[in-house]
Amino acid sequence: MEEQHEPTKGTEHSTAGAYVTGGEFKRDTNYIEDRIVADVDAALAAPVEAASPIGDPRIAGLTEGAAAWPVEPGRYRLVAARACPWAHRSIIVRRLLGLEDAISLATPGPVHDVRSWTFDLNPDGRDPVLGTERLQEHYFKRFPDYPRGITVPAIVDVPSGQVVTNNYPQITFDLSTQWRAFHREGAPDLVPAGLVADMLPVVKRVFTEVNNGVYRAGFAGSQRAYELAYQRLFAALDWLEDRLAASRYLMGAHITEADVRLFTTLVRFDPVYHGHFKCNRNKLTEMPNLWAYARDLFQTPGFGDTVDFDQIKRHYYVVHEDVNPTQVVPAGPDLANWLSEHGRERLGGSPFGEGTAPGPVSAAERPPGANPLYSAP
Amino acid sequence: MEEQHEPTKGTEHSTAGAYVTGGEFKRDTNYIEDRIVADVDAALAAPVEAASPIGDPRIAGLTEGAAAWPVEPGRYRLVAARACPWAHRSIIVRRLLGLEDAISLATPGPVHDVRSWTFDLNPDGRDPVLGTERLQEHYFKRFPDYPRGITVPAIVDVPSGQVVTNNYPQITFDLSTQWRAFHREGAPDLVPAGLVADMLPVVKRVFTEVNNGVYRAGFAGSQRAYELAYQRLFAALDWLEDRLAASRYLMGAHITEADVRLFTTLVRFDPVYHGHFKCNRNKLTEMPNLWAYARDLFQTPGFGDTVDFDQIKRHYYVVHEDVNPTQVVPAGPDLANWLSEHGRERLGGSPFGEGTAPGPVSAAERPPGANPLYSAP
Repeated sequence: MEEQHEPTKGTEHSTAGAYVTGGEFKRDTNYIEDRIVADVDAALAAPVEAASPIGDPRIAGLTEGAAAWPVEPGRYRLVAARACPWAHRSIIVRRLLGLEDAISLATPGPVHDVRSWTFDLNPDGRDPVLGTERLQEHYFKRFPDYPRGITVPAIVDVPSGQVVTNNYPQITFDLSTQWRAFHREGAPDLVPAGLVADMLPVVKRVFTEVNNGVYRAGFAGSQRAYELAYQRLFAALDWLEDRLAASRYLMGAHITEADVRLFTTLVRFDPVYHGHFKCNRNKLTEMPNLWAYARDLFQTPGFGDTVDFDQIKRHYYVVHEDVNPTQVVPAGPDLANWLSEHGRERLGGSPFGEGTAPGPVSAAERPPGANPLYSAP
Repeated sequence: MEEQHEPTKGTEHSTAGAYVTGGEFKRDTNYIEDRIVADVDAALAAPVEAASPIGDPRIAGLTEGAAAWPVEPGRYRLVAARACPWAHRSIIVRRLLGLEDAISLATPGPVHDVRSWTFDLNPDGRDPVLGTERLQEHYFKRFPDYPRGITVPAIVDVPSGQVVTNNYPQITFDLSTQWRAFHREGAPDLVPAGLVADMLPVVKRVFTEVNNGVYRAGFAGSQRAYELAYQRLFAALDWLEDRLAASRYLMGAHITEADVRLFTTLVRFDPVYHGHFKCNRNKLTEMPNLWAYARDLFQTPGFGDTVDFDQIKRHYYVVHEDVNPTQVVPAGPDLANWLSEHGRERLGGSPFGEGTAPGPVSAAERPPGANPLYSAP
């Protein structure tokens, strides 16, 4: 749910999806909260649910005013910029679960303009399936006067061209729970029923302190707000460093949704957040457990093979002109070390549990930019 | 010779001491090139010398139009901001040579305004010896219409209040060669006659590729200029990493002027240049020989005990508003590792050669800001 507008410093500044007040960055949490569900009637009959900033895989119902759309392979297109950490989650989960044939993928380029994410990576500037230049068109087909940020990820109903949902915290959970009939054979269970109650507090802390914590530091409107944000962020990273000392993954022996959500921030940490957002107590590479854990995931099919470091860097350094007015994109860091031995096997466990790894990324979906998995950097 | 004006991006922009042309940062090399010499008559009689961007400890004469001033303890005041790497050199050399009683020290604060470095660290905003608020006043006493940047280091003639020289590449060499009669007992020879011919090419490469190389990257006016600057900088750091594998100091077994000149850039690398100037292939801490060498120097009396990390960070992040418009100063990096064991003793050598270490920094000259030598960070 990366915004196309970003807040500027130190002002009572309302943007289309994020704002700064009293020097502290706040994230807008109003989304199009429709759901795509396996059983529409059951969803409509279930109790109304409160919106959650982290989503919830256990809920059957809808939030107030939301609609239910039926799971239907081939009907929907996931619009997810590779640059955006919130969209990146959905790319990873779709691939881990083998939903590539059921839900197609559109990847807007990293540098959106003030109006919208655009399909500028395509030769003719149009998404080949949706036929449009801008994600905004699909928001407007749904709500002609849509007033908020044009965010990714968004799921578009291909026949009508309407955005069904941009409610990123729920999208990935629903890929796991509602699309189960279309998962590949051997797909991992990313939200194991027995672990969900323990996982949600972890996911919540990772969201508020880490996923969003880097933005809180980077968009702080005052020195004081920045320093408080920095303390909160590194306190959480220290907690994770400790948690991962004896546990191969966040929830134990196998990967879960919690790992996906942490990974998308970790993979951006040294290339972007450390410098651009001033999250610089240390690099990720200087936290031994977190760095080994991040490399373990990076080298696991479904994680690193979805990463495009060029798009990631271009997005932040070019779009946030108020943080980086020169718009020069750093050439570093050196990426070769993502492939170094991580040694996490000593902790036991297996990424896919009873399941298996996904096969290679299709040629059409291979990230075009820098990634040491595809070529020596 | 940090400028009070800094170039902005991408423009044919002429400032009072540095400019950008064709996207590449250029450093103005016009200075007040008077010298303070042990023998004024000999200097006047010697052949006229060409100005050198790195200075030369062997020359006896003056550059065209320059004057000679006599060495005289108590007469001159060195104005050197702790924040500025070019001024920092002179603070280190003065201390290594034990010239504290012969040449007094004024330390402007880290955040100059558009006109001048100011003496704002003093309670009343005035330098206690010079009686002024701004270094600019001393430039104007010398040249009422002084047209160029008000730079540090500058040596001021206390009786007249005039700037004698701001020719930083020569200032430190002259402290070694012209002030020899007033060096402390046991002062090291930082420009040993037998090494000078070998040292100057090293000093030159360190100047163009490293000392100035970080600025070339940070002030690049285009992506292309930045990337070329980044390549040049890291090529030079790789050369130094290799050179320091088997040699304890740059010129062998003992410290020289060359080490002082490299140290002032290295100590700023991770706190400033890595993020602010996008010199981010790796941190200094990721180059084992350079990092151990930098810590070895930091822990050697005369080097680390002159460092003020707070002033260093504040200077760059607050003054360069066109690079960092929020003016938020990063809280990192963690500094405790500067005191960790460096293991360089295995290479033999001794920092001071036949000489001895300087004693502790006087209370009056202790850097007021963050430094792990003075307090746990």
